[in-house]
Amino acid sequence: MRKRIGFVGLGIMGSGMAANLLRAGYVVKVFNRTRSKAEELAGAGALIAPTPAEAARGSDVVITMLADPPAVKDAVLGRNGVIEGLAAGAVLVDCSTVDPMTTAATLQAAAEKGARFLDAPVGGSKDAAAAGELLLMVGGDEKALDEVRDVLEVMSRKIIYAGPSGSGTMLKLCFNLMVSHVAAGLSEALVLGVKAGLPPQRIIDALMSGVLASRFIEWKGGCIVDRDFTTNFSIKLMHKDLNLLAGAGHSYDVPLPVTAAVKELFAMAKARGQEDEDFCSVIKVIEDFAGVDVKR
Amino acid sequence: MRKRIGFVGLGIMGSGMAANLLRAGYVVKVFNRTRSKAEELAGAGALIAPTPAEAARGSDVVITMLADPPAVKDAVLGRNGVIEGLAAGAVLVDCSTVDPMTTAATLQAAAEKGARFLDAPVGGSKDAAAAGELLLMVGGDEKALDEVRDVLEVMSRKIIYAGPSGSGTMLKLCFNLMVSHVAAGLSEALVLGVKAGLPPQRIIDALMSGVLASRFIEWKGGCIVDRDFTTNFSIKLMHKDLNLLAGAGHSYDVPLPVTAAVKELFAMAKARGQEDEDFCSVIKVIEDFAGVDVKR
Amino acid sequence: MRKRIGFVGLGIMGSGMAANLLRAGYVVKVFNRTRSKAEELAGAGALIAPTPAEAARGSDVVITMLADPPAVKDAVLGRNGVIEGLAAGAVLVDCSTVDPMTTAATLQAAAEKGARFLDAPVGGSKDAAAAGELLLMVGGDEKALDEVRDVLEVMSRKIIYAGPSGSGTMLKLCFNLMVSHVAAGLSEALVLGVKAGLPPQRIIDALMSGVLASRFIEWKGGCIVDRDFTTNFSIKLMHKDLNLLAGAGHSYDVPLPVTAAVKELFAMAKARGQEDEDFCSVIKVIEDFAGVDVKR
Amino acid sequence: MRKRIGFVGLGIMGSGMAANLLRAGYVVKVFNRTRSKAEELAGAGALIAPTPAEAARGSDVVITMLADPPAVKDAVLGRNGVIEGLAAGAVLVDCSTVDPMTTAATLQAAAEKGARFLDAPVGGSKDAAAAGELLLMVGGDEKALDEVRDVLEVMSRKIIYAGPSGSGTMLKLCFNLMVSHVAAGLSEALVLGVKAGLPPQRIIDALMSGVLASRFIEWKGGCIVDRDFTTNFSIKLMHKDLNLLAGAGHSYDVPLPVTAAVKELFAMAKARGQEDEDFCSVIKVIEDFAGVDVKR
Repeated sequence: MRKRIGFVGLGIMGSGMAANLLRAGYVVKVFNRTRSKAEELAGAGALIAPTPAEAARGSDVVITMLADPPAVKDAVLGRNGVIEGLAAGAVLVDCSTVDPMTTAATLQAAAEKGARFLDAPVGGSKDAAAAGELLLMVGGDEKALDEVRDVLEVMSRKIIYAGPSGSGTMLKLCFNLMVSHVAAGLSEALVLGVKAGLPPQRIIDALMSGVLASRFIEWKGGCIVDRDFTTNFSIKLMHKDLNLLAGAGHSYDVPLPVTAAVKELFAMAKARGQEDEDFCSVIKVIEDFAGVDVKR
Repeated sequence: MRKRIGFVGLGIMGSGMAANLLRAGYVVKVFNRTRSKAEELAGAGALIAPTPAEAARGSDVVITMLADPPAVKDAVLGRNGVIEGLAAGAVLVDCSTVDPMTTAATLQAAAEKGARFLDAPVGGSKDAAAAGELLLMVGGDEKALDEVRDVLEVMSRKIIYAGPSGSGTMLKLCFNLMVSHVAAGLSEALVLGVKAGLPPQRIIDALMSGVLASRFIEWKGGCIVDRDFTTNFSIKLMHKDLNLLAGAGHSYDVPLPVTAAVKELFAMAKARGQEDEDFCSVIKVIEDFAGVDVKR
Repeated sequence: MRKRIGFVGLGIMGSGMAANLLRAGYVVKVFNRTRSKAEELAGAGALIAPTPAEAARGSDVVITMLADPPAVKDAVLGRNGVIEGLAAGAVLVDCSTVDPMTTAATLQAAAEKGARFLDAPVGGSKDAAAAGELLLMVGGDEKALDEVRDVLEVMSRKIIYAGPSGSGTMLKLCFNLMVSHVAAGLSEALVLGVKAGLPPQRIIDALMSGVLASRFIEWKGGCIVDRDFTTNFSIKLMHKDLNLLAGAGHSYDVPLPVTAAVKELFAMAKARGQEDEDFCSVIKVIEDFAGVDVKR
Repeated sequence: MRKRIGFVGLGIMGSGMAANLLRAGYVVKVFNRTRSKAEELAGAGALIAPTPAEAARGSDVVITMLADPPAVKDAVLGRNGVIEGLAAGAVLVDCSTVDPMTTAATLQAAAEKGARFLDAPVGGSKDAAAAGELLLMVGGDEKALDEVRDVLEVMSRKIIYAGPSGSGTMLKLCFNLMVSHVAAGLSEALVLGVKAGLPPQRIIDALMSGVLASRFIEWKGGCIVDRDFTTNFSIKLMHKDLNLLAGAGHSYDVPLPVTAAVKELFAMAKARGQEDEDFCSVIKVIEDFAGVDVKR
């Protein structure tokens, strides 16, 4: 029999993910704080649950895709939250990116109900969510992952098993560490080059002609020279992840001298009021000091 | 009539470049300080010049591929150097990566002989030089570049015209800025992840499954987990380029806070005695503090 | 009538502080987790309380001097903790350096008992505590401070009122920020100078002959050249304060780029295993890279 | 017989220094590029020389106090420069702060004339120069220093012999390293504290009540809260010294991670257009990000 799915959190990412599950033929009971978002999916066959607990009740798999730790505490651990309705034997998959303490608390609450828990933060943006092409980085019991793999594959083009509970989140943080470094490096390279007289597209061309060539440099480099800072992932969220990384460096006793400098560059962008702009707008900090704009 | 070529500097890179020119049918007069290197190419048809000046004399194009500014000062600007033999109307192409002052001095010396000058540092390693697949970043008179493009295309898969004299060097420095940032970021991400319990290959897999995927991450990530620090580009040379970048930031009044942190990380690696190891061995600095090795 | 005092926490600092109160003629009821420490003070007239709650019961002023937030949570907010015995109208003075959340929780718990609360972290070491020459940085209700000023003056040579509740802690953190910067700067100046051939004492003499002259530079400079890293304030505690400062920078949206670099330098010292050494041993990180010892 | 003195460079510092020599009864022949400055001293008994060479001719001691390396190259090493007139056996004392290469060139030129050379950069500002209370950090032959000590003592309250030629300059750079760190730390501490609600004077009071208390913190702290950025030592000059320090770190293979962050903070201040303001105006960089002014 096909698995019954509960889905909590229908934001930019979550609504695309849930739509893919419905399209694949699963029975999906959805909950969203703003009910209208849930009703949009009703036309595609979604059942609407009045509370997270009801979305979870009777489901084999419960997927949550929430904004931040307080949202998880409320919709998962709180009154009428997912845990209240979670069945023994079910698998709870949290696709949110949260801190290790929230992950640990959810794991324990699920275990007390006899359920399994996977932390499974995603790589990819709105478009990838809509297209079912996310990257999933999964921590927790590998057998539980195998049981729900068919469901997760509907939403993703790649699933990486990272290790025990919490590992998915740590892997996601390492991923974002690299993204923040490349964004910072690209910013400094472009501003220096342009101030020295180079056309910015030549710098991007050179980078795209060597071993560093990546979709990121082409995509975000293009956004920068086109002055298109439409938010894909915000300065504020990147800064939060850099804070989680600083905390992880502290916990695991790993000095991170360059990440610390990257974090303060994002802190400068945030303090300037760019917190809701795309993270590649971090270049504006350097541009303003240098007195140049990196544009086509 | 086919252009006559002078080639000075037959090191790891230069010998591959000159061999390609011979293979393409050009008449090439070569000079190398250690004569045996030149003799190896004689079998392939190279004429051997006793001095750089003689390699230049009568040549339409003179290509130099030297280690550092002192080598350029000696073999190009010094007694019996290239400039002495350079014909009016010839084009001198310096493929070395040197500082802006050396580039400016060479430009002026060439102009005094009625010759043109291009700074054309290369991207790519020994293998790319041998295969004629270098990236050339060229600064100087664009008409001069057009005149010698057929010759340069024999050595490269891509030529990027960067702008006026000195621009090729600046573009190369921007390129290496990015390389150093990605190497530093990869180091911090891998050590943190591994100390937190993640298998390093999973981190590389995750990076290779997202927008950051690049040949660099696959290649150097693989070298790190295999503990293969065979020198492709040394810590010492990367540190020198980071010093040139710091100087450029100073000259052009562009604050480079993250590059400064990256530079000190490479300074730590150099101070520890890793100066001749590959630049990706910079990870050892973080590994030793953290007390973990990132290995397969 | 003289105020009755409860005192909780008789560590290196607390025992000196309590002894001064006894010497000044106050009736002091003391509690310490390790009872022997309390018994040492009994000879000087201290009454021994079996629990923190009993030390607080009937006291006009309760002073706590504890190691860290968990110790405060246990001995103040926990079962049989200070709050249980705290009288309405009494003043609770916490001389520990803890995070803002712990301070806020203590403030609220005291208020629920009708008591007042002051956060009053101290500047100064063991010797200053024994001599009654601490610096007190006090946050909270200024009228409550005036009421207990006679008691606090017995322990200190200077009391600075910082502002509303929590301000004492923030002021202490700003103080330690400066201490960590000066220690880091002194480390880099001494190692560079010595590697360049300067006798270290000449560098200290020069600093002591200019506007920067301070007891700190004379004292810690002397410790370094004498290789005396006896712990006055540990690497671990300084690193914790730098983490609290990073958190404060984040909360208040203040980029702290230099403090971030200082924090990673202390992280390196801690990761190397120096966590229990004096904070001025941070110089060893730079010394080891440079391959020199800064000694007389 | 009293020593005859040549003095070259009558700027803000030099004119006060020369005036003290005249007051002490020495015969002083002065040269300044702008002649009016020299004429001001003629009333006090100075002889006016038409060129630096003439100021040097016949003098036992020649003191130079010039702005930067180009000024030294011109007035000392150039045509009609000090070296041309320098007598065998004379002592040349350069009180300018210049780079090691300029110092080395001057040493060699003096030696070729049979003269001795001391690099003797000063600590202290205009007021200290006028009052004869400078700090002198001297490198070179110690016997030469002993011979001219009576002259130097007229200008200074303290003379520190640093070691062989060049050591005076290195000691001065170590001194300024510390000054830049303390200025940066004070900036971050004050902005964070003020944004968190502390009155800035309380922060300065706390610092002045502990081991860090120094004339610097009282003086520059006062300037900041009074918003008085009258230039005592400019952002531009501090940034130049930080560049010399970065170069020294590179030459001597000493990683300077915190100094690198301090340097970029000053680079930001310079890039914003504060280059001619006092170096303690570096606080404005952090203030602007934080959106607060640190004022009384």
